[in-house]
Amino acid sequence: MTNNDLQERAINTIRFLSADGVQKANSGHPGLPMGAAVIAYTIWTKHLKINPANPQWIDRDRFILSGGHGSMLLYSLLHLSGHTLSLEDLKQFRQWGSLTPGHPEYSLTPGIETTTGPLGQGFSNGVGMAIAEAHLAAEFNRDEQEIVNHYTYAIVTDGDLMEGVASEAASLAGTLSLGKIIYLYDDNNISIEGSTDLTFTEDCAKRFEAYRWHVQKIEDGNNVEQINAAIKAAKKDPRPSLIICPTIIGFGLPTKQGTAKAHGEPAGEEELRTAKKNFGWPTDQDFYIPEDVRDHFLEIREKGKATERQWQDTFNKYKDQHPDLAQEFQRRINLDLPQGWDADLTQFAKDQKGMATRKSSGEILNQLADKLPELMGGSADLAPSNNTWLNSSAAFQKNNTSGRNLHYGVREHAMGAVVNGMAYHKGILPYGATFLVFSDYMRGALRISALSHLRTIWVYTHDSIGLGEDGPTHQPVEHLAALRAIPNFSLIRPCDANEVRAAWIAAVSRSQGPTALVFTRQNVPTLDRTKFAAAEGLLKGAYVLADLGSKDPEIILMASGSEVHLIIEAGMKLSEAGHAVRLVSFPSWDLFENQNQAYKDSVLPSTIKKRLSIEAGICMGWEKWVGECGICLGMKTFGASAPANKLFQEFGITADQVLEHALKLLRE
Amino acid sequence: MTNNDLQERAINTIRFLSADGVQKANSGHPGLPMGAAVIAYTIWTKHLKINPANPQWIDRDRFILSGGHGSMLLYSLLHLSGHTLSLEDLKQFRQWGSLTPGHPEYSLTPGIETTTGPLGQGFSNGVGMAIAEAHLAAEFNRDEQEIVNHYTYAIVTDGDLMEGVASEAASLAGTLSLGKIIYLYDDNNISIEGSTDLTFTEDCAKRFEAYRWHVQKIEDGNNVEQINAAIKAAKKDPRPSLIICPTIIGFGLPTKQGTAKAHGEPAGEEELRTAKKNFGWPTDQDFYIPEDVRDHFLEIREKGKATERQWQDTFNKYKDQHPDLAQEFQRRINLDLPQGWDADLTQFAKDQKGMATRKSSGEILNQLADKLPELMGGSADLAPSNNTWLNSSAAFQKNNTSGRNLHYGVREHAMGAVVNGMAYHKGILPYGATFLVFSDYMRGALRISALSHLRTIWVYTHDSIGLGEDGPTHQPVEHLAALRAIPNFSLIRPCDANEVRAAWIAAVSRSQGPTALVFTRQNVPTLDRTKFAAAEGLLKGAYVLADLGSKDPEIILMASGSEVHLIIEAGMKLSEAGHAVRLVSFPSWDLFENQNQAYKDSVLPSTIKKRLSIEAGICMGWEKWVGECGICLGMKTFGASAPANKLFQEFGITADQVLEHALKLLRE
Repeated sequence: MTNNDLQERAINTIRFLSADGVQKANSGHPGLPMGAAVIAYTIWTKHLKINPANPQWIDRDRFILSGGHGSMLLYSLLHLSGHTLSLEDLKQFRQWGSLTPGHPEYSLTPGIETTTGPLGQGFSNGVGMAIAEAHLAAEFNRDEQEIVNHYTYAIVTDGDLMEGVASEAASLAGTLSLGKIIYLYDDNNISIEGSTDLTFTEDCAKRFEAYRWHVQKIEDGNNVEQINAAIKAAKKDPRPSLIICPTIIGFGLPTKQGTAKAHGEPAGEEELRTAKKNFGWPTDQDFYIPEDVRDHFLEIREKGKATERQWQDTFNKYKDQHPDLAQEFQRRINLDLPQGWDADLTQFAKDQKGMATRKSSGEILNQLADKLPELMGGSADLAPSNNTWLNSSAAFQKNNTSGRNLHYGVREHAMGAVVNGMAYHKGILPYGATFLVFSDYMRGALRISALSHLRTIWVYTHDSIGLGEDGPTHQPVEHLAALRAIPNFSLIRPCDANEVRAAWIAAVSRSQGPTALVFTRQNVPTLDRTKFAAAEGLLKGAYVLADLGSKDPEIILMASGSEVHLIIEAGMKLSEAGHAVRLVSFPSWDLFENQNQAYKDSVLPSTIKKRLSIEAGICMGWEKWVGECGICLGMKTFGASAPANKLFQEFGITADQVLEHALKLLRE
Repeated sequence: MTNNDLQERAINTIRFLSADGVQKANSGHPGLPMGAAVIAYTIWTKHLKINPANPQWIDRDRFILSGGHGSMLLYSLLHLSGHTLSLEDLKQFRQWGSLTPGHPEYSLTPGIETTTGPLGQGFSNGVGMAIAEAHLAAEFNRDEQEIVNHYTYAIVTDGDLMEGVASEAASLAGTLSLGKIIYLYDDNNISIEGSTDLTFTEDCAKRFEAYRWHVQKIEDGNNVEQINAAIKAAKKDPRPSLIICPTIIGFGLPTKQGTAKAHGEPAGEEELRTAKKNFGWPTDQDFYIPEDVRDHFLEIREKGKATERQWQDTFNKYKDQHPDLAQEFQRRINLDLPQGWDADLTQFAKDQKGMATRKSSGEILNQLADKLPELMGGSADLAPSNNTWLNSSAAFQKNNTSGRNLHYGVREHAMGAVVNGMAYHKGILPYGATFLVFSDYMRGALRISALSHLRTIWVYTHDSIGLGEDGPTHQPVEHLAALRAIPNFSLIRPCDANEVRAAWIAAVSRSQGPTALVFTRQNVPTLDRTKFAAAEGLLKGAYVLADLGSKDPEIILMASGSEVHLIIEAGMKLSEAGHAVRLVSFPSWDLFENQNQAYKDSVLPSTIKKRLSIEAGICMGWEKWVGECGICLGMKTFGASAPANKLFQEFGITADQVLEHALKLLRE
């Protein structure tokens, strides 16, 4: 037990390191770190099982600062606990190239578990982490060797609790009774526009009880003992826990504490000096860390080493007794794929009637699932339509966390953040599915997935007006463009069952970012690959399906997904009429962009200026591939409610239209 | 009081009309209409104040079917109550060009109040409608003349309640105590993947009580008297009301009722025939309406005429006593703008230091607010940063609904749907604001805004890496492209204070769809309009700022927003070096697309092939404007955390880069 004076000074060290960081950067958010320092101190010194010398240790507790704007709190803790983040790094807060950006970024700074800032994401990521933990524990723990057994902590804010994504995730966590979740709510009654009375008067305790959480409300969020006792109680309860901690934003700032002014701007030199004086803190130096406080915090590091060593002993015994399991566990944690994982996937026979790519996806996914036990996911209540159910496994449920099928519920945004959470955790290759049009509901999470370089897979079916009668509310038109727009986000829209196989291989192989697989509701022909190039061309993003005619091609017809068979049909007719036509299947812009210039030129030679693209979405961006003389066929408006074939006719997404426009180009 | 037999047959008429519609279309959702028919019947025959002969009557109650997939329920009710929707229209369910699309579409079908289908939207639109009602009541009602006094009803589903957007909206509605909201929850325990036990086990009643709603749970959602009594109690309570009605999905379908199979596919001929037989319904005809049932429902029409007539009497008295107010009321309902609304807006003087466009926006917005009392909105907890506070008005709060400033809270998605709800209601010109990057959180609502042709305005500030230190989580990169992708969605990114004025004029003038106004955090120069063309050129989307040099232009430099001053700087240097340069300000692609070809050619003549664009976002789509020989400068990755100037340097968004690439083009 620490003496109270040391403890108090340790907490003030966190407060003033954070405030100094913000002051030096002349930008940032001092309010959260100063107000929630006691909460963070209690978690980090009394509970958090981590080894700062090895932030990758798999059985560590996870800590999430869901209000990422309070990043200096996290950086202060990382530094003090002996992570490889120097005092110099703290002084570089918010500067170019530093390890201490304005909001915490995963994969940049050692010890950062999640990229946070957009509110609600961190809260919801934690639900995914807890799912991963529960699942891996069920799969790998044996008898007395609990190699997976850790908590997910978060500090969450008013803003997080107002966001819908967190509501969705909380409801899911309650349904699944994810007891390893322990969230501390920094309840400071202040948001940017002022008191939460203006806009957030709900009874949070009652709301979380309604979600089936274990809720405690302590008296004082500045009291270590109260927080400590509440965390202990939380650990004993089988439900996810919310601990409501009344705090004062910017605690210690003489004129700003308890007001919105403390939230998002530097305290100011004078204000900060007075605060330090009032706390008996040296006013003549910044980034001050008393020696005994430094030693005190470094106990986290020492304790962490010992704790991991203990775990390693357990794991060594585990390895002796269950060598295959141990190897498998390490493979999965390292995100390695098993030998032969992509062998023996179905080669689909040619078939003019064909099948919906969502159907072939369902087949391939199930084959992959047999080889990749890490593959785990589900749909936002559309599994029967998305074809994402793993037949060889059960549902992940409260009483069966070994199940690999997740019922996310009608909660697209939380699904996104939960999938991200599983990926952050490691050991899982997670996926989420819904209709393509509802990718709109989850873009907040998709963006973070790309920014954090997470290995995630998104299955989007019903990818165009081809979904038919459900009408424009359900027909994506702009979504291919909108998803392609996200940096480091891969999008693949395969044209037939064999391209579906290749698309899944591309998605599973990608380790440094998310992949969206985009599938049709309706049937598309399975191409005869003796006449057309192999479907593995998909891995290069675009490839020549065939050059029709014996001359050099006069025109290039290109398409993605369900429109590829249209260019084939039109191409055949042009060829019969004596034209030399190149047919290009173009399932992925980003994969094509990644190819070298020679390959790109070989598919789209600059000498062939007559080019036509067709896609059942808006044209935006296709101009890049067809060039100035080319023609882009696509949707210009929202869709409509009618049978799919009628819609393709009415909106001009037909082989006839390709033919007509191609002839026009050839005449020019 | 109706006799029970007639009532029962009236309800069965709704059930079987709906099921027949789905069966005939061979596509659709019979489960909701059959399960919730009693709820709908009770609302429509015993409470809903509408006049089917005039579905535009402003003081009607609003009715929302938030689970839009149950559209046949709504179409049946519209037909039976005597709206201009024929039985033939019902038979055309889900067919090309019909008035009965798969999901209800506002502005297509008379009597449809909202476009629903994407879950959670309708629920949240109702909150906006109730805000509009409360505000207009506070502004216009006088003494005994309550010209605005109506309820907002909705039937909401499990899916709606799972969606985060509805959680956000519910919390806001509770905070604002919007007592005119009466929602009936079709609690059927079934979602597409099966029982809600799998994924949705929360205590909904408790959750809504936590939001400060008035919650009632009746015994039987098939009991007219219970529903009726609950609605009466809801009307008496000052809080928004949720009435939980336990129902059976697909009620009456012998093998499918109460299962997920009843949700989203036709019942099947045999199943439906048996159902009809069991209910004593003729099995030999479809779309059957007993004569006395027809008469019974047409009482809604008769009652409605009388009720509107009564209202009209009141309004006539009101007109006598308050002629100006009456005229103003009608103007606002008609979405007319007052004479001179756009006169006298500030003409900003040239200023090299300039100002942030979010600041000039704040000024113009406040000037407009003085002339346009219908302008009403706010921010998702970022008003001080978005500069969206109306200084001449108070906050809209529980006890002051005359306030025009809304505190939406940290609830971007609900803000979107609430703004849409105010627009659906009419009488308000609503806006919502946040950082551009968080447009991602609200795309579900933005899309519906565009699809429904709503007059809405979205203020998006902090529009690029120019926001600086907050880093990549807060820096939009792909968002301009992603928003431009939405059909019927206007996006304007003005380059200086005077273009800001013109942008607001464009947004307010647009009556048939949403407009996003995109503003900088950082200062941009106010251009000298004696040297450059007038800022009103913005209204055409793109315009020639100036042709530098006396020759015909050799090159076109184009940019939007904060990058316009970069092309000016580079252009000056090119001009000094003897080149003839055209400078084009390009704030809006969609406005430019709307111009005739002659104007477009006058700005971007096809003879000038050397073109360069620069924008601090991804390049996608700019290829269309620069052509094959052109160069697009922009962002290729996410941003980073550092001071803004450093970021512009590092990411190459500078006048030097424009100059360098322009020279390269000129050398070619």
